[in-house]
Amino acid sequence: MRKNLKLGLFGFGVVGQGLYHVLHETKGLKAEIKKICVKTKNKSRPIKENIFTFDKNDILSDPEIDVVVELIDDPTAAFEIVKASLKSGKAVVTANKRMLAENLEEIYNLQKKYGKPVLYEGSVCGSIPIIRNLEEYYDNDLIKSVEGIFNGSTNYILTKVIEERKSYSEALKQAQELGFAESDPSLDVKAFDPKFKLTILIAHAFGVFVKPENVINFGIDRISSVDLKYAKDHGLGIKLVARAFKSGDKIYGLVAPQFIEATHALSSVRNEFNAVTVEGAFAEKQLFVGKGAGGYPTGSAVLSDISALTYDYQYEYKKLHQENRAEFTNDATVEVVVSFSGADQMTIADFENFKGGFQGNGQQNLQGSVKLEKIREWSQREGINVILAEGAGLIPVISADKKLTVYA
Amino acid sequence: MRKNLKLGLFGFGVVGQGLYHVLHETKGLKAEIKKICVKTKNKSRPIKENIFTFDKNDILSDPEIDVVVELIDDPTAAFEIVKASLKSGKAVVTANKRMLAENLEEIYNLQKKYGKPVLYEGSVCGSIPIIRNLEEYYDNDLIKSVEGIFNGSTNYILTKVIEERKSYSEALKQAQELGFAESDPSLDVKAFDPKFKLTILIAHAFGVFVKPENVINFGIDRISSVDLKYAKDHGLGIKLVARAFKSGDKIYGLVAPQFIEATHALSSVRNEFNAVTVEGAFAEKQLFVGKGAGGYPTGSAVLSDISALTYDYQYEYKKLHQENRAEFTNDATVEVVVSFSGADQMTIADFENFKGGFQGNGQQNLQGSVKLEKIREWSQREGINVILAEGAGLIPVISADKKLTVYA
Repeated sequence: MRKNLKLGLFGFGVVGQGLYHVLHETKGLKAEIKKICVKTKNKSRPIKENIFTFDKNDILSDPEIDVVVELIDDPTAAFEIVKASLKSGKAVVTANKRMLAENLEEIYNLQKKYGKPVLYEGSVCGSIPIIRNLEEYYDNDLIKSVEGIFNGSTNYILTKVIEERKSYSEALKQAQELGFAESDPSLDVKAFDPKFKLTILIAHAFGVFVKPENVINFGIDRISSVDLKYAKDHGLGIKLVARAFKSGDKIYGLVAPQFIEATHALSSVRNEFNAVTVEGAFAEKQLFVGKGAGGYPTGSAVLSDISALTYDYQYEYKKLHQENRAEFTNDATVEVVVSFSGADQMTIADFENFKGGFQGNGQQNLQGSVKLEKIREWSQREGINVILAEGAGLIPVISADKKLTVYA
Repeated sequence: MRKNLKLGLFGFGVVGQGLYHVLHETKGLKAEIKKICVKTKNKSRPIKENIFTFDKNDILSDPEIDVVVELIDDPTAAFEIVKASLKSGKAVVTANKRMLAENLEEIYNLQKKYGKPVLYEGSVCGSIPIIRNLEEYYDNDLIKSVEGIFNGSTNYILTKVIEERKSYSEALKQAQELGFAESDPSLDVKAFDPKFKLTILIAHAFGVFVKPENVINFGIDRISSVDLKYAKDHGLGIKLVARAFKSGDKIYGLVAPQFIEATHALSSVRNEFNAVTVEGAFAEKQLFVGKGAGGYPTGSAVLSDISALTYDYQYEYKKLHQENRAEFTNDATVEVVVSFSGADQMTIADFENFKGGFQGNGQQNLQGSVKLEKIREWSQREGINVILAEGAGLIPVISADKKLTVYA
């Protein structure tokens, strides 16, 4: 039988308000918000004042509250709330991808220790039920790869820049006005946000906990007219692609912009939409597309987690219990197109396998394969932009006596 | 704790063999095939002979067998197996969409009566986990519509005909050679197969049992050079679209070919791929794409059902228990483009709202809105082809004193 749940909310921003409305318009779900803890006093709020509190203990120490819904921005404070909630015997629903990515192994251990679940579908790709599907449905299907467009605001910006020839700054401003961009836009445009989501999916797809700092990310904030000309000349689009895959007993992952052909499945994923492709041994490729940003899509994912708690659902992290667990590594090469402004910023020796390029007339493009660590190095220097070549998979670097495994 | 399961299989065709291999290559799943009941004796089979039986009671009367996996073609025999299995206290996994569509309400009642689950993810859109998602994830999201491409072989044929300019008969032959077409191709090309799937989804999305004969279907087997010319002239593709949606307290459904713009989400779903779009009140539109035909994709869906039985999963049919359950009706109009060969086959009076058209020079096209029942009437006569107009939703026919509700 399903339980009645009393909820304590932390935070009442876009997602919190979306959840509040979604909950009120949904019949049949036995869940009710008892308290909402907010930070800022004397702010006009759209619902009755007596539900709000400024003291976290009004929620954490209330024995009637079964579920804490954590929807604040600050990852450090959010993690404290998660820990305190589990310790008080409360289940947790959260959509804080950064907090989750940075602490996922500890959160897994805390769930075991205190016997209470933490659910976080809303943290990855808004309304797309990807974690639940990886947990439940791909249970027995050996997963080869998970990839897609995990960030709505950068996808919106790229759509405007590529299709409508808007300037980058104009498109960013528009995304912010529409509420797609996070409170700190650099987390989006420098591709940290999709990286946090990728590390969460790596745990559920491959059973590996990887710290976000180990996964290399390259943003879209250095895309210049040179890159746009390259795209136009070759009839290609650009998408910010997050990707993880398994090869042998190794897991590889990377988030970077990529040139995409018009016929590619991700090419039709436009504006604030997100997409995830899961490739399994038997089910082959599955594509999930849905809105990745906004209060309602994320609120709806949070609500599905709350609903799942009414029948005591919890993630099993099944792939963690597999024999022969794989290991994360950056020991791979990938084909890239690099553009830069100063002629002295790069030499052919930076490439493992140099394919060619063009320098002069203000356009500087080099193409070839580089090690993943080279992309990390370039991301930490100014003036160099990296875009993965069309169709680029990651090619693991394998010593000469072994056969080269190519993923494409 | 998860249970060990012993399985009894009925049928060992493409899906049965797919399941056998998928099961053998999957570590960690505690399920084992004990017996396989087949019909044809003296046929060479790829696995050891002593696992096969020709007597259904070797499975039905074996107390060690927990789960019956029904994978035969004949819907009448399949339903007998489902009933006998439930009666013997065994859970059932099946992928027989026709049997399910024709008997879903009774199967629902039998599950309640005998307390054993029937799972059937493999029956709808092969590898796409759509039933499980409708059951679990859209639990609290008010679903507005479910639509998509539910048949792999007709989508393959349409792709070849539209994109590669192959003839219909050539494309059909190719689909059959590749094993995408069912044993009776008319179930595919006359759109019965996607209709069976649509009625199953209507139960899980809207909580309504509708008999397949109440849902109108129009196939792709009458598409002629006239229609292809129309498509080419207007820069459109053609897809066989299955669609159900809710408006007020009414549920509408239809399966028919439709002209589709190149930018439409379903346009990029090619060859044997299937797609489902779910539109919810809060999650907005979600698109799921995956392989809809073939032994491995369907075998993988069947395996996920078997896996779910290790933790006693069952469908809750939650939407059946909602207050204010909706009712299925065909009282709606829809905009169509009609082509036909004899000038006397149709008059403008057949249309509710006539938009125009062209007759002469061997090309005869009329466009306008018709009642759904008119499409059923035309499907039962020769020489008339119907394709839904681009962007066509169903417009419910509402009496003059009420406001017209338009879905688009």
